[in-house]
Amino acid sequence: MDVEAPKELLEPLQLPRRILTGPGPSNCSQRVLQALRQQVLGHMHPEVFQLMDEIKAGLRYAFQTANKFTLAISASGHAGMEASIGNVLERGENILIVKAGLWGERAADIAGRLGIHVDFLETEPGVAFTPDTLEEAIKKHRPKAVFVVHSESSTGLKQPLEGIGNVVHKYGGLLIVDTVASLGAEPFYADAWGIDVVYTGSQKVLGAPAGITPISFSPEAVKKIQSRRSPVPVYYWDMNLLGKYWNCFEGQGPRIYHHTVSATLVYGLREALAQLVEEGLAASWTRHASVTEKFHRGLLRRGYEFFVKEPSHRLRTVSAIMLPRDVEASRVIRYAMDRYNVEISGGLGPSAGKVIRIGLMGVNATPGHVDLVLRALDEAVKFAKCQLKSNL
Amino acid sequence: MDVEAPKELLEPLQLPRRILTGPGPSNCSQRVLQALRQQVLGHMHPEVFQLMDEIKAGLRYAFQTANKFTLAISASGHAGMEASIGNVLERGENILIVKAGLWGERAADIAGRLGIHVDFLETEPGVAFTPDTLEEAIKKHRPKAVFVVHSESSTGLKQPLEGIGNVVHKYGGLLIVDTVASLGAEPFYADAWGIDVVYTGSQKVLGAPAGITPISFSPEAVKKIQSRRSPVPVYYWDMNLLGKYWNCFEGQGPRIYHHTVSATLVYGLREALAQLVEEGLAASWTRHASVTEKFHRGLLRRGYEFFVKEPSHRLRTVSAIMLPRDVEASRVIRYAMDRYNVEISGGLGPSAGKVIRIGLMGVNATPGHVDLVLRALDEAVKFAKCQLKSNL
Repeated sequence: MDVEAPKELLEPLQLPRRILTGPGPSNCSQRVLQALRQQVLGHMHPEVFQLMDEIKAGLRYAFQTANKFTLAISASGHAGMEASIGNVLERGENILIVKAGLWGERAADIAGRLGIHVDFLETEPGVAFTPDTLEEAIKKHRPKAVFVVHSESSTGLKQPLEGIGNVVHKYGGLLIVDTVASLGAEPFYADAWGIDVVYTGSQKVLGAPAGITPISFSPEAVKKIQSRRSPVPVYYWDMNLLGKYWNCFEGQGPRIYHHTVSATLVYGLREALAQLVEEGLAASWTRHASVTEKFHRGLLRRGYEFFVKEPSHRLRTVSAIMLPRDVEASRVIRYAMDRYNVEISGGLGPSAGKVIRIGLMGVNATPGHVDLVLRALDEAVKFAKCQLKSNL
Repeated sequence: MDVEAPKELLEPLQLPRRILTGPGPSNCSQRVLQALRQQVLGHMHPEVFQLMDEIKAGLRYAFQTANKFTLAISASGHAGMEASIGNVLERGENILIVKAGLWGERAADIAGRLGIHVDFLETEPGVAFTPDTLEEAIKKHRPKAVFVVHSESSTGLKQPLEGIGNVVHKYGGLLIVDTVASLGAEPFYADAWGIDVVYTGSQKVLGAPAGITPISFSPEAVKKIQSRRSPVPVYYWDMNLLGKYWNCFEGQGPRIYHHTVSATLVYGLREALAQLVEEGLAASWTRHASVTEKFHRGLLRRGYEFFVKEPSHRLRTVSAIMLPRDVEASRVIRYAMDRYNVEISGGLGPSAGKVIRIGLMGVNATPGHVDLVLRALDEAVKFAKCQLKSNL
């Protein structure tokens, strides 16, 4: 052998227990984990097709849509962003991106690579835009599509979406919405709100492992994709092909092989959606709301300020709060992890260095987790202050 | 709710046992499956970084390369193909693709979407090309890169690779090699053979689940990527960014968040590589060779013909054989699955309708599996012939 066997792989796999209360991934339920250990199946086996159909049904419920074109991409959430933009738009077309945090910037990066012209509606980080300001920007730029993040996990902002679809459609555009950090926790109605493309993360509220990304396209979006003059630049998420594998086209005949779906991740997502169905979507929304209300009450009682000033625009999944000016975030984060195995995250994008972020999603959205996180936070801040004093 | 909860998700998950002896995926070992059920961790946790480092070391061993730029993409094997071509080539550049089966065609489709000019070296399906014919084609087309499939699983062809790198480099090109269906079973030396980009499938010989794709870039390939005039068109597999997440650049500083890697798939691939290290690469090559020799002897004794005429060019992973003309493949396939839970596949691309394909890879590369597959095949063919007679 030219290259010798690496000795580190002779050590057994050892993993710590972590309570994932950052902005995601969140923990998986025992039921989901149990599904992941099942032996794999082939990507063209009828049993896998049935699970894919069940996933489609579960996702239509989660997205609240009748879209036949609802499926999951075999990649992480960023691929949902890239597939949305790359399918409905072509080189030379234009998109209006609402830039309220990191994810809008990322969407612009992705669109730019594909030769799509980007205009921005820039908002102050942590502040929602109104349908009126959007309409002004649309009138000015006349975009083929508008990209909006429902749950800006970098700042904890929830963007209200009612009425946005009408504004976008009035000028002939398509509305793309990122619900990576909200779907299943925040009320969301893809059809009633006139959303043309929506995707979410498997590893946040839904509680499946990362690596498989739910996405849904309205009939208008599908029409746009089917009338493209150029091929979708990426085979891996070309919906013309992927849709045939996921059986999304009316009367399409047998499914056609496109890629090897990961049976493991299909099992996990199927079970996560089954748990959502068992709990009920409305019940899940309510649970996340009441848990976050308890959490935010606890934070306010302690004098914390939120990055998002308007209370009704604070996400019930990821909260971004300011630490006292003399407390170093990195110390707090390390202490909570070392002593409590509790994940607290720092800021990201516009909130980097300014906040800590805490997520209570899926199986971690319980009153017990609120108590645990607050206890860990209290102690960690106390510790960080002590350290500060002892350093003086 | 506008869309009601789908009742099919209230049924428990029920999965059949299947012996995956088609062209892939192959079964996972119990050790890998056990790893998949471990609770997920965050994509920026130090424990996950350590596993990613171990995966890199394991992959350098499996690829037989010293490439620092060795990592895994969070997507299926097709993404390896797309990331290879999309990173080292730019719009307007040209690639020479050896089209010996389905995978060469797929590579051309992928390159074309990116605005890369494609020339072909077409070979008769099931027949390897020689360095001389390649050199002629290179002289004619002067490609920036040459794409070759080591293991053409659609026909069962193994393309000899020694000497190919020299030919490609002589004219200043880069050599991209697809080892999806061979790595870990067929002798392969990325560095000694002068291969610039190589990727493989996790779900074949390695025996990890699908959805995470090992890939490696030579220093020359990295140089080409870093000197691009245009950005890599796809954020998700832009190696300039992904490399910073996987810590592939010399002295790069801390890792930078790129996407949420699936901890589940990281666990699975890590354990699969650990098993390869424990067995030893040479031992794995030998095991696959001897098992396939036994299998092929059994097939020849029964009078079967191979799609690949040259014995030394037959893969020791996937075998494509012709059925007697009066035997319908679909009946054989169905019988083997129904009675034995044994997967036999039909042809694909140039072999569609002409062959059945059987794969003995990873944990399924054992003498016992040879016996089982031959027994299932014997019975299935007998059954198909009887059905034929009773239909007359």
